[in-house]
Amino acid sequence: MREFILRALKARTTPDFKMADLAGAGRMDLVCRAISNALWIANSMRRDTIIHACMDGARLPPKTVSFNGETLRGANPDERSIGGLIRKALGAGETLKLNESLESSPGITVSKKAFERLVREKSETSELYYLHKKGEDIRNVKFGENVCFVFGDYIGMPRKTEGLLDRFGAKRISLGPTMLFASHCSVIIHNELDRREIK
Amino acid sequence: MREFILRALKARTTPDFKMADLAGAGRMDLVCRAISNALWIANSMRRDTIIHACMDGARLPPKTVSFNGETLRGANPDERSIGGLIRKALGAGETLKLNESLESSPGITVSKKAFERLVREKSETSELYYLHKKGEDIRNVKFGENVCFVFGDYIGMPRKTEGLLDRFGAKRISLGPTMLFASHCSVIIHNELDRREIK
Repeated sequence: MREFILRALKARTTPDFKMADLAGAGRMDLVCRAISNALWIANSMRRDTIIHACMDGARLPPKTVSFNGETLRGANPDERSIGGLIRKALGAGETLKLNESLESSPGITVSKKAFERLVREKSETSELYYLHKKGEDIRNVKFGENVCFVFGDYIGMPRKTEGLLDRFGAKRISLGPTMLFASHCSVIIHNELDRREIK
Repeated sequence: MREFILRALKARTTPDFKMADLAGAGRMDLVCRAISNALWIANSMRRDTIIHACMDGARLPPKTVSFNGETLRGANPDERSIGGLIRKALGAGETLKLNESLESSPGITVSKKAFERLVREKSETSELYYLHKKGEDIRNVKFGENVCFVFGDYIGMPRKTEGLLDRFGAKRISLGPTMLFASHCSVIIHNELDRREIK
């Protein structure tokens, strides 16, 4: 199993945003691109992959919206379609209590769950990794069967979060010399894992 | 210099399409994502990169819209913004005669130029590459200074086009075992070139 956790510090957590201005909803466009690149491949979908977007923007944070490639149906890889599914999930999840969750569409779950809680849960079942310019080169990293990669969004990962990840045993890895978007990182990670035939 | 040529066989070549339905305009959403992933990086843009979208859809093919990272200004990496710039370019280029071109926005050029002609021009100044599952692994390829990568869109590369590329000396390269979107391929290629510090 391959999992990705995107921390989107400003992404809107209520459905009151316009599809014509995803960027204005706390850079929801970045979240959509990260989901698209993590799950879709030519003529198919990565059924072994889940991506979680942990959103902390206005007005009802925290919210985690998870797209599960195994059970996702009837979705398309363009930003607008994914934005619509996120908006639907946020609408369905408005009255959730802390750590409650529900499935808003096939393969899409919304939870009132904070990033810290999700990372703690994943640390119990998966190897955690996060991107750091001084991390070990991904091409030299030995991966296990269940891997979970944590990304910051355009704001970057706060120091406090890095400390949390270190406490949970997350390994620092580097993809190369250039600072990339989260949506690019998943492509490179998938490529490395595909080459090693890790499913 | 890094260049990418995307052959978009069905992408609409006139500006009569809706921003709310980029997918319906011959999968213009794929074209937008390819441009976004080829040019934008975190906090910056790849100034050493140009991407050309060669479009052959209705109603005025051929059209080539080129985004030049060196001179592009005031553009954003979301699909909708890029779609708007393509639409503006197609509108500005409606009366172009064969092989004429004009700049529709800073860094964006529209030409009434066919894919075949563009590839021939590039073969004179750059090393050409195209993706093929039986190609040489990109990690083993020796790249020169000016490189130009040719991609098919979701329809794939017609046999005839492969023949043309072979005639122009294009090398077949492989990125890995999984069939990816053109928008993913540029991310992996950039990463490989970044690692080698090829600018």
